[in-house]
Amino acid sequence: MAVHLKDIAAYTGVSIKTVSNVVNGNYDHVGPETRALVLDAIKKLNYQPNNAARHLRKAQVNVLAYAFPDLSNPYFADIGHAIATEAAGRNYTVLLDYTFSERDKELNILAGMSPHLIDGLILDSHALDVEDMSQIQTSGPIVLLGERLFGAPLDHVLIDNTAAAYTATRHLIEQGKRKIAAIGVQKARSEAPSLRLQGFMQALTEAHLPIDQSLFMDGGLWHRPDGAAAMQALLARPREEWPDAIFCFNDLMALGAISVLGAAGCRIPEDIAVIGIDDIEDGRYANPPLSTIEPDKHEIARIAVHLLLERITGRRTQEPESIYVPFHLHARASTMGCKTN
Amino acid sequence: MAVHLKDIAAYTGVSIKTVSNVVNGNYDHVGPETRALVLDAIKKLNYQPNNAARHLRKAQVNVLAYAFPDLSNPYFADIGHAIATEAAGRNYTVLLDYTFSERDKELNILAGMSPHLIDGLILDSHALDVEDMSQIQTSGPIVLLGERLFGAPLDHVLIDNTAAAYTATRHLIEQGKRKIAAIGVQKARSEAPSLRLQGFMQALTEAHLPIDQSLFMDGGLWHRPDGAAAMQALLARPREEWPDAIFCFNDLMALGAISVLGAAGCRIPEDIAVIGIDDIEDGRYANPPLSTIEPDKHEIARIAVHLLLERITGRRTQEPESIYVPFHLHARASTMGCKTN
Repeated sequence: MAVHLKDIAAYTGVSIKTVSNVVNGNYDHVGPETRALVLDAIKKLNYQPNNAARHLRKAQVNVLAYAFPDLSNPYFADIGHAIATEAAGRNYTVLLDYTFSERDKELNILAGMSPHLIDGLILDSHALDVEDMSQIQTSGPIVLLGERLFGAPLDHVLIDNTAAAYTATRHLIEQGKRKIAAIGVQKARSEAPSLRLQGFMQALTEAHLPIDQSLFMDGGLWHRPDGAAAMQALLARPREEWPDAIFCFNDLMALGAISVLGAAGCRIPEDIAVIGIDDIEDGRYANPPLSTIEPDKHEIARIAVHLLLERITGRRTQEPESIYVPFHLHARASTMGCKTN
Repeated sequence: MAVHLKDIAAYTGVSIKTVSNVVNGNYDHVGPETRALVLDAIKKLNYQPNNAARHLRKAQVNVLAYAFPDLSNPYFADIGHAIATEAAGRNYTVLLDYTFSERDKELNILAGMSPHLIDGLILDSHALDVEDMSQIQTSGPIVLLGERLFGAPLDHVLIDNTAAAYTATRHLIEQGKRKIAAIGVQKARSEAPSLRLQGFMQALTEAHLPIDQSLFMDGGLWHRPDGAAAMQALLARPREEWPDAIFCFNDLMALGAISVLGAAGCRIPEDIAVIGIDDIEDGRYANPPLSTIEPDKHEIARIAVHLLLERITGRRTQEPESIYVPFHLHARASTMGCKTN
């Protein structure tokens, strides 16, 4: 059970405002006895606001870390760049740490976070669960990104994945496509595949299109070769079973699919349209340019850095929140053809 | 003037082997007086092998850093991944730090390197010069990557850029191309552009082809948009002045050029062939797949990590070396057409 400011207030009989002042190191209006009483209660109740202990120590090194799963996906490079830029504007350096989506690596990062090393962590976890998080004694605040760890007691910045997938699928339907395959559908520790599948099916249902599970394709690690392999499997079917559009759950798989369609001489989008999610630069320069859903990366970075610094400096002591940022549809030639060229 | 083991040996009158033992913390065969004598000489002569002081301290944290200029270029992500994999196999974690190619950021990384934070640094510098390096008091060993800081007193792992560019250009000539443009030619703090231009011109000269400076195109920051802009400028010329092949000094620019050629309806390679350098995954999945020169990234990472750990542990005390690793030509459809498909 997490201990909150109000528990310390109830335990000590002082106001929440006073407890908050002590936690944040504002002793101007707090007498020494009250201060000792609150600090004692913090210890006895094992109160662990990531920021409190650190703020009392005031040992900031002005270094943040961004831990992400996959160095070969430019989406994370984009986010890292946005975070580093945002943090630089506030005089913080950002160290990047990547985890191969491995649970042990993520645990190590959490366990190894020391106040000498970094002040706080922005974590895009792909392997931990809420129980892991509650068992780890971290010494600095954490802000979560991405589609895992819903319900962890941490601030969390993300997009509405179901709505994003719905928007992508609806765009294909609006282009007259009726037989749409989805690539990237699989059980994974991350929630992203199932949320995106929900949005996909929601758009099909709303348009009274059948849901054909033979068009649900696994996407492995969501890399280019995974998208290419799924596309090859679809093209290996009899021509009359081919889909007329592909919704890939990220841009990398869409680029893999486009390379297979190009090599097979299929016309994009006339024969088969393709859309992804992420808006990585690779897609903008693909042949044809790739339609996609862009999570607002600057907003993600801006809010994540802001929340983290608020926790580090002790200005934010409220309960953690999940904050959803906008996404945008970019309709390019891979779904619109020459209409956009 | 750098002070070497032999200077300490001469100063103290003990053997180099004994000095080396003391520097490396092997006291088994060194008496206490000799040890004190050597340690005193190390101090008096201001001997600064990065590793010696640190090894005597024995305060390793098993963390390395890789500092690189550009997060949006997948080449550096590939190298980072290879370094992290190599280091993980030797029980080291790698923090990534990127510098936007900015001098201040690079200086900060060097100045901020502390033994509590990291044991050593692999640096792909794009902004510092040799004088900067000599003025910085770093507390841990450094291995350099890339095409700058030739002559800095540090171990350096790189490819022969002139030979790589020669190989790429010669490959275009062997495909029958005669009017070859180069994209990425500009004065920069890094030596890479001028070394690659040398190799380019060397291949043209050897094939008795004219060197036409109107086909030397700037490449800005060597990103996709830079390659696209240069290609657009070439296509804006009268048709009879078009080149029949493009050598881009990296893959990102080549992908930008390919996107412009695709949108303009040019046939690749029949009208204009394209080759790059780096072998990033994006190129392998381009339409058409991009021919390129692959620096042996695994070898770069393997040797860099090895040299760094040897310095950290004090097993390597010799003069710094420049070590050249191999590169490989991958001839794909962007130069070979259907011959490779």
